Amino acid sequence: MLTSSSASPLRVLVAPDSFKGSLTADAAAAHIAAGVTAALGSAAEIRLLPVADGGEGTLDVLASATTARVVEVPTTDALGRPRLGRIAVMPSGRAIIEAAEANGLPHVADQPLRAVEADSAGVGALVRAALDAGADELLVTVGGSATTDGGVGLLRALGARFVDAQGREIASGGGALATLDAVDFSALDRRALAARWRIACDVTNPLVGDDGAAAVFGPQKGANADDIAALDAGLDRLATVVQARTGVDMRTVAGGGAAGGIPALLHAVMSAQLEPGIDLVADAIGLEEAIRASDVVITGEGALDAQSLRGKAPGAIAAIARAAGIPVVVIAGRVALSADELRSAGIAAAVPIADGAAELRELEARAGALVEAAAHRVASLIDLGVTVGRRSLSSAEPVSSADPASAGPTTAGTIKGEGS
Amino acid sequence: MLTSSSASPLRVLVAPDSFKGSLTADAAAAHIAAGVTAALGSAAEIRLLPVADGGEGTLDVLASATTARVVEVPTTDALGRPRLGRIAVMPSGRAIIEAAEANGLPHVADQPLRAVEADSAGVGALVRAALDAGADELLVTVGGSATTDGGVGLLRALGARFVDAQGREIASGGGALATLDAVDFSALDRRALAARWRIACDVTNPLVGDDGAAAVFGPQKGANADDIAALDAGLDRLATVVQARTGVDMRTVAGGGAAGGIPALLHAVMSAQLEPGIDLVADAIGLEEAIRASDVVITGEGALDAQSLRGKAPGAIAAIARAAGIPVVVIAGRVALSADELRSAGIAAAVPIADGAAELRELEARAGALVEAAAHRVASLIDLGVTVGRRSLSSAEPVSSADPASAGPTTAGTIKGEGS
Repeated sequence: MLTSSSASPLRVLVAPDSFKGSLTADAAAAHIAAGVTAALGSAAEIRLLPVADGGEGTLDVLASATTARVVEVPTTDALGRPRLGRIAVMPSGRAIIEAAEANGLPHVADQPLRAVEADSAGVGALVRAALDAGADELLVTVGGSATTDGGVGLLRALGARFVDAQGREIASGGGALATLDAVDFSALDRRALAARWRIACDVTNPLVGDDGAAAVFGPQKGANADDIAALDAGLDRLATVVQARTGVDMRTVAGGGAAGGIPALLHAVMSAQLEPGIDLVADAIGLEEAIRASDVVITGEGALDAQSLRGKAPGAIAAIARAAGIPVVVIAGRVALSADELRSAGIAAAVPIADGAAELRELEARAGALVEAAAHRVASLIDLGVTVGRRSLSSAEPVSSADPASAGPTTAGTIKGEGS
Repeated sequence: MLTSSSASPLRVLVAPDSFKGSLTADAAAAHIAAGVTAALGSAAEIRLLPVADGGEGTLDVLASATTARVVEVPTTDALGRPRLGRIAVMPSGRAIIEAAEANGLPHVADQPLRAVEADSAGVGALVRAALDAGADELLVTVGGSATTDGGVGLLRALGARFVDAQGREIASGGGALATLDAVDFSALDRRALAARWRIACDVTNPLVGDDGAAAVFGPQKGANADDIAALDAGLDRLATVVQARTGVDMRTVAGGGAAGGIPALLHAVMSAQLEPGIDLVADAIGLEEAIRASDVVITGEGALDAQSLRGKAPGAIAAIARAAGIPVVVIAGRVALSADELRSAGIAAAVPIADGAAELRELEARAGALVEAAAHRVASLIDLGVTVGRRSLSSAEPVSSADPASAGPTTAGTIKGEGS
């Protein structure tokens, strides 16, 4: 126990992602903090900084980690029905737009999925509200959308026109893009054009083709084979028309196929920058500064696997912390990385939450208590090390510690067994 | 990473019990050591000291932790069939007799269970062999027996006579005890009478009655209701006859009902001392000295629950370590103790082995690798604490650490959340 008042408290940064299906990032952070506090008491100085990777829950995380103000604004869902969607706006002029607050699949789950008609106009309404609130930097997350309209609805809500050969506005939804003949950006909201757009994008799928928006994400939005062919052709038509107007080929944007093509169109028209979601979030919440101001970082997520190390919170945190020489511990519902993989990633230890044999649904149901107990174990073992290390130091000369994240074990330890 | 050559290595005592159903204590110790070594390399000095609580595997543990020589000697199973059984004899004159090497249930599993006929003569053969090898102190473990003969077979193998009213030797097995009329110890092996007998005994069941040998343990040895009544009456008859001869009432010996009454008879005739198995083992393997010579102890068992703290290895180790001020970590297949219960027991941290949702049989099948990974986590987190603690010390004055096992948390840690 770190009870000596002469030692500075252990600065613990608690920065978990959500545990999908059981805990929000906020809840996970609270449980980890409770476990650490139970183990260390006032010997720990805990900072809570829940993270997100640009997917579901990112708005909440950004809002709670920053001075952003969250407001509800009128918008529409992917079927054009009115709803309230949240946006977050910071005094600095930075706004957070979670596209799925408008065009998300859950909001249209009460209806049969209609991929060819789904429309992103509601996302444009969110953007307009952010601009009305004074935003000049738009952080857009695009996961979980129901639309495949190439972002046409979004830009139309900001003043753009998408017309057929007769000069009439084409219908809503990706199905109508086949009739597109020309675009007119002359009436586009000037504020939108002036703003800095940054899109959190974790996929590399292009707009069209076998790996494109329609082929890969169409089925989960209700598209059958005919729909996919029609949507893919429509998006290709959109790209041709937009390229003629802007000179930018939406088809070559890596990740342009996310959210039914929204990033591709925003890139072509608004010069939107596509970034890994975690990088955008890390920047927005000041993750690196927080890590550098800590002695140890505890992060977490539902499952720690190879994917976690590519664009997910634990991997990104480990990379930052490693560069800063701060050790990182990951608490996870499932740990599917070997000791070597953890070491390579700069993760000091990965701690699963299960306390015995249990089915997934049991772990999910008890996730809060299990995460807390895991955090208690982590803090207790670190504390044990602090105590033992200081004790042994009292009879040894001072040590210049090696970087815990980058130094690997060298030789096997001395193993003493007694003869039989 | 404890890489500085100026710091003394972390002395880790690896002292697990077996993980029932999956790992012997030896195997568990090897896996824990592998995990610690992978994490700490030469910065750890590991001593392997597998433990046992007097149950199955105790002979192996005692033999491997000491300088005992294990030999196979001719004996008989509970049905009188010849078999080879192992005994361990130390140069000091101490011998280890695992009764189940002769009268164990597994050896007669090929036959229908015959509780009334099962006989402990084979245990006597093991004892005789130990005496022949020069033993003068007999450590006897009695778990897993198939017999309910009150130890009559055992003593008969050492020269005692148990006769009916006609002076004829009664038949083998507890069923024949009803015909017992007198005992004759005149021809008992003098070496057995002179030896010091110590029996590892973890139950408190008396010889007879509702909590007695026949009623409680009879069914698992194949006794039906009639058999139980007959065996119980026979054991009571034995007690009456032996009391008449020795003055000692076998019925009042706590734990005398273990192994079908063997401890009760050995207590009455040989003044055998009944001890908790873990105490006897701890003494035999020098557990306390080993704990005192370590910086941290890692123990383990299949399931860590309330029972573990009463007479099982982790509880006993925690008690010794707490008195010595050495922190203890438990690795277990299942952890069913709360943080408060662990603290009360003096356990710094309990670490479950599961790495996600898994059925018990999957955990058992992967137990070796999972234990190794858990030990890796434990060592990594301790090492993290050592590094962080020394780092913070370099900018603070020396600390006199409080006892990690007895100091509880005091107040809640400082929790800093940022406003939204």
